[in-house]
Amino acid sequence: MTDIAAAITEVKALLKNRLNTSKSVCDLHGQNETYFPKMIPDAVAFPESTLEVSEIVKICAKYQCPIIPWGVGTSLEGHALALHGGITLNMSEMSNIFDINSEDMFAIVQPGVTREILNKELRSTGLFFSVDPGANATLGGMAATRASGTTAVLYGTMRENVLAMEIVLADGRVIRTGTKAKKSSAGYDLNKLFVGSEGTLGIITELTVALKGQPEAISAAVCDFPTIDNAVDVVITAIQMGIPMARIELIDEISIRAINQYSKLEYPEKPHLFMEFHGSKSSVASQAESIANIAKDFNAGDFQWSTKPEDLNKLWSARYQAYYATKALFPNQIGMSTDICVPISKLAQAIKDTQNDLKEFNVIGSIIGHVGDGNYHTLLFSDPNNPEDLKLNKLLASRMAHRALDVGGTITGEHGIGIGKLNFMEQEHGESLSIMTDLKRLFDPQNIMNPGKMIDLDSSPKNY
Amino acid sequence: MTDIAAAITEVKALLKNRLNTSKSVCDLHGQNETYFPKMIPDAVAFPESTLEVSEIVKICAKYQCPIIPWGVGTSLEGHALALHGGITLNMSEMSNIFDINSEDMFAIVQPGVTREILNKELRSTGLFFSVDPGANATLGGMAATRASGTTAVLYGTMRENVLAMEIVLADGRVIRTGTKAKKSSAGYDLNKLFVGSEGTLGIITELTVALKGQPEAISAAVCDFPTIDNAVDVVITAIQMGIPMARIELIDEISIRAINQYSKLEYPEKPHLFMEFHGSKSSVASQAESIANIAKDFNAGDFQWSTKPEDLNKLWSARYQAYYATKALFPNQIGMSTDICVPISKLAQAIKDTQNDLKEFNVIGSIIGHVGDGNYHTLLFSDPNNPEDLKLNKLLASRMAHRALDVGGTITGEHGIGIGKLNFMEQEHGESLSIMTDLKRLFDPQNIMNPGKMIDLDSSPKNY
Repeated sequence: MTDIAAAITEVKALLKNRLNTSKSVCDLHGQNETYFPKMIPDAVAFPESTLEVSEIVKICAKYQCPIIPWGVGTSLEGHALALHGGITLNMSEMSNIFDINSEDMFAIVQPGVTREILNKELRSTGLFFSVDPGANATLGGMAATRASGTTAVLYGTMRENVLAMEIVLADGRVIRTGTKAKKSSAGYDLNKLFVGSEGTLGIITELTVALKGQPEAISAAVCDFPTIDNAVDVVITAIQMGIPMARIELIDEISIRAINQYSKLEYPEKPHLFMEFHGSKSSVASQAESIANIAKDFNAGDFQWSTKPEDLNKLWSARYQAYYATKALFPNQIGMSTDICVPISKLAQAIKDTQNDLKEFNVIGSIIGHVGDGNYHTLLFSDPNNPEDLKLNKLLASRMAHRALDVGGTITGEHGIGIGKLNFMEQEHGESLSIMTDLKRLFDPQNIMNPGKMIDLDSSPKNY
Repeated sequence: MTDIAAAITEVKALLKNRLNTSKSVCDLHGQNETYFPKMIPDAVAFPESTLEVSEIVKICAKYQCPIIPWGVGTSLEGHALALHGGITLNMSEMSNIFDINSEDMFAIVQPGVTREILNKELRSTGLFFSVDPGANATLGGMAATRASGTTAVLYGTMRENVLAMEIVLADGRVIRTGTKAKKSSAGYDLNKLFVGSEGTLGIITELTVALKGQPEAISAAVCDFPTIDNAVDVVITAIQMGIPMARIELIDEISIRAINQYSKLEYPEKPHLFMEFHGSKSSVASQAESIANIAKDFNAGDFQWSTKPEDLNKLWSARYQAYYATKALFPNQIGMSTDICVPISKLAQAIKDTQNDLKEFNVIGSIIGHVGDGNYHTLLFSDPNNPEDLKLNKLLASRMAHRALDVGGTITGEHGIGIGKLNFMEQEHGESLSIMTDLKRLFDPQNIMNPGKMIDLDSSPKNY
């Protein structure tokens, strides 16, 4: 029988004042950055070690108390909400960097380390951690949701960049996955099974992540196009020619307007590509030149490129601000960010279909894409005083997801499932979903590990 | 109760003359390329479709009959041997290429397609399939063993290059894993769980594999060094400087002697690096030049590089022949190829330790490494008339594996576990091995899928 109160009493005895049941702290951990209502935990634990996490899990297993891992709460699909109450594990006290190995290019960190903190520590080493989802998320949260972002096109997502992990299982056992070698053929790839498992199979208590060498030179380029089709065609051509792009971002005209207003810039209000190239001085110049030539063939406007750090900073800070800039363009509205990923030849049509939907359903929304990966986001707005508005947004998101599946893509490229995309899992996976459900039951027979996320063991209809 | 004869009768009714029980055919499928004794199946099936594979598996499930998938039999750890008899599935009749998608750069193939056949089909497209383990293995076999080889340092292993699969499970159900999009955060990564699972969780009946664009230019370089340390230091420095190498192979002096004799070449009998660079004409030239400069700092001998196809062919055919050339150097001996993978900073010491072992135990052996990945192979020889010799080889392989674990590496970088490395699984994985065992039991409760490989459900001591 579930007895959350009893679990809290025992965890309190273990953690003392690092187990918090105050309304304010619980409330904070029941919030999210998007459209979901508050879902508040009964307590928030701040463990300091793997051993403590293991002890907490053992107590929760005894009382069938839900456990919800929490990084910094930047998930966009409700991953860290306390859907069924229970104890939220705030991992901020586990934020040590244990090792930075320059020769073998990896770092060993606790899950509460954010990517910006790690990169700050790396500054003097000539190395950097490449995965960049925009938000200053924790590495534990990024691994749990298989995060990616702007640089994945060259350096890969968390799937490729988490080499090894330490995991606390649902019965409190501690296991290690992966190795520090670059590859292995020894056994089932448990490491990749836990990356992206959203806290539903176990809790990440340590990560070994790959580091990359700072390139000798970086160049950035920006270019506008009359249509999104033209911009996407440039990217497809560049990929087929093997031009290595470190970042290649599509920004639609609404986002450009938002960025211009928010950051006092003057980009033409047209679809843009923001690009970055990493390599030697000569290669980044020749890469930018190659792209400029391709862009000309596809009706490009003004093509600007630079290797000056101040230009790079201006460009990417504008890109990073797109989310908040667009929100600022539509104040007092609820923002909902949804993403899909498709084979790149299907990207232009997928975006056009979404643009048509926006018009047809008269919904305010902007589109931004990690276009080299075939991944794009739509930021949809709804009036908090009109619940029908949010329903319409969900309908549009659902249409995006289904169209992604129609062309061999996926219902989410990087945001994950959480509670927001549970309803599409069966359509993406078919019979494989029953295997995933078997796995969930094998690892977490009592359904205490972030219950209700990703795999829905309770089949009643949901309305998230 | 296991009833192999009954299973064969029913499969015979299904496949007619595509189920073969002749001694010669069964014998052929009981052989291997290395030191294991013959282990002969009771029958060999040649299915033509996923549906047939599913029907065969259902029959085998009914009679608890072992099923062993067979590509072309080039595994080096006994993966395809019929350890407990049963039916071997020869996948050669499932070798259609269903789709080559140039825009999205993937191919959809059946598991019996070999990598050379696929690359031949791709010739006119400007694309190629990058994973190159040396042997002309089938793509099904390569996915099952998580193969890699010479180009993994730039293009990744099968782990990175298998996008999606169709799998027949142990109860005959057919599932699909992965998507055609470049990335996904939707659910547990079943695709990566099946890549490298060695036929123990299900049978691969279709694969979607990533293709790469043919580079505009290719240059190759070759250079000798007084010591292996020097050669490895060049590679570490190049990686840290971010010089993208498409191939970087270490060949020890014995292998060089073998190659010289076998291919009538005249490389100095010293450790060598064989390298290849892919990119634009200017970048492959500058990459070769950068490496030449680094090599100078580490006592390099003659540094030769070329972009001429005939020079490239000569170099890589010499490299490919190393295995057979070295075997030819020691005729009438049993060859045993074993591999480990370590963090690259530990590679030189690991190789030195193995060289010392060879001397100390007076064993004939050569060393070749995919050195950019920290992965190396030792080819050990033993007298078939002296069983103590083979025992000594196994001892050396065991010492290599344990030293790999001591420095955070893995007991196999690319050969897999099969039956040859079962004994080291617990030392590599600890408590994680019990999770892998749980997974095996979940997917294959009757232990009919390639039984006895990778996960040992029967704990009696083994002497493979």
